[in-house]
Amino acid sequence: MRLTVIGIGLIGGSLALTLKRKGLVSKVIGVDNNPVHQEQALKLGIVDEIMSLEEAVKSSDLIAIATPVNIAEKLLPTILDLIDKQVVFDLGSTKERIVNIAKAHTKSGRFVPTHPMWGTEFSGPSAAQEDAFKEKAAVVCNKEQVDEDALKLVEQVYQTLGMHILYMDAVKHDIHVAYVSHISHITSFALANTVLEKEKESDAIFELASGGFESTVRLAKSNAAMWVPIFMQNKENVLDVLNEHISQLRKFKSCLEKENFEYLSDLIENANGIKRILK
Amino acid sequence: MRLTVIGIGLIGGSLALTLKRKGLVSKVIGVDNNPVHQEQALKLGIVDEIMSLEEAVKSSDLIAIATPVNIAEKLLPTILDLIDKQVVFDLGSTKERIVNIAKAHTKSGRFVPTHPMWGTEFSGPSAAQEDAFKEKAAVVCNKEQVDEDALKLVEQVYQTLGMHILYMDAVKHDIHVAYVSHISHITSFALANTVLEKEKESDAIFELASGGFESTVRLAKSNAAMWVPIFMQNKENVLDVLNEHISQLRKFKSCLEKENFEYLSDLIENANGIKRILK
Repeated sequence: MRLTVIGIGLIGGSLALTLKRKGLVSKVIGVDNNPVHQEQALKLGIVDEIMSLEEAVKSSDLIAIATPVNIAEKLLPTILDLIDKQVVFDLGSTKERIVNIAKAHTKSGRFVPTHPMWGTEFSGPSAAQEDAFKEKAAVVCNKEQVDEDALKLVEQVYQTLGMHILYMDAVKHDIHVAYVSHISHITSFALANTVLEKEKESDAIFELASGGFESTVRLAKSNAAMWVPIFMQNKENVLDVLNEHISQLRKFKSCLEKENFEYLSDLIENANGIKRILK
Repeated sequence: MRLTVIGIGLIGGSLALTLKRKGLVSKVIGVDNNPVHQEQALKLGIVDEIMSLEEAVKSSDLIAIATPVNIAEKLLPTILDLIDKQVVFDLGSTKERIVNIAKAHTKSGRFVPTHPMWGTEFSGPSAAQEDAFKEKAAVVCNKEQVDEDALKLVEQVYQTLGMHILYMDAVKHDIHVAYVSHISHITSFALANTVLEKEKESDAIFELASGGFESTVRLAKSNAAMWVPIFMQNKENVLDVLNEHISQLRKFKSCLEKENFEYLSDLIENANGIKRILK
């Protein structure tokens, strides 16, 4: 099977590397508008060949869209126009808008909207990893609108990656990821800005930074080209969660201001409830 | 050398295990008011014997205070009253108050205020680890007020743990840790509460939680008995940083509300600056 990966970065690159090594695909064609990434992807053995979008779609059986989500929604109608019997899937972090765009197309049954729940704070082909997705969840949205053979093939892709598949409505997906992914990135970006803003003696402070700080601020290395479009597309849900998060932080602030240490203790003990869920 | 550890939890336990294995101490005496922890510490080989505070201080050469910071400040004058030539040090996350308490005592030269920059979200003797502190920084505060032999011995302790020592004024220490440790815990607690508050379909959501979420929320498992006293003692600095953090989050909120995606991108790129500091 010949796979085209559009957007050869962290996600697309990791997908290509793993599927090729596992033998599910025999050839990987890369499409990327960044010449540096094209060259890196060839050099790192992530893709066998670079082609234009049209050429690539025509030469492959399976097409993965792994671009930022704003690019994905622009490309999808063009790709669906170009295909015949091929299968197309995306790997973006928001699902409602792309599902609606697909619905408007006559070949919508060939498109499988998905979101593998894996990523790192790094980007570009050099960030790609083999076996990256293993043991994580992959979400497949609105499967009832997808042709049976297309769904089966994409399920096979995620099974090959070692992921377990969750089926979910796109609207619900976007709400859930606002909670377990998008807000984490915003708090991490804001935390980095807080520290960078206020702390001038950076040498002293960062020698003190222990594992806890690194862990909460790690996601702040994530890149804007990927995250701005995600926040744009999921604006309403992200704002809901962000408002709640600010109001939770204000509770801590008020406890400190009023020296209400009993309530502070209650807040912390409530937060400890996350242990029930994350082992 | 005989070591007394007061408070046999994550920090005190890890200290005892490592110093004994490295051969710096021949015997470890444990002091803890929790009978379950006493028993666990004996069973896990963390301490050789449990004694009362008075007995333990009299029977040892070096005394480590590894209790929550509110207990440490209460115990310190009693311990200094009890010692003769022994050396006492604490390992707490706030330093200004304990330094001031020490100053008021005639034997203040025997007390070394320190803070090893390591911890995990777990607590109790069962959380103790050998080699836990390795390659991290240990802060020693206000060394000019400490007797030379006492300072040397505590430096030897941290060198034995494989840590590098930073010397710092206690007031400055408390400002720095508000940025690189205390605020991370507050954001993590608040994030856990946000998610636990708003998300009712917990099964669905937490299957989606990927590494990023786990990383930002990990510290929310930390225990209230340790953290409430830290926040109490470092209230002013923590409030400063928390106010700045809330105002940084409000910038993200305002960008989303106004769909000012250029400024959102600037905020993220600024946050990426953390890469310069954390590799």
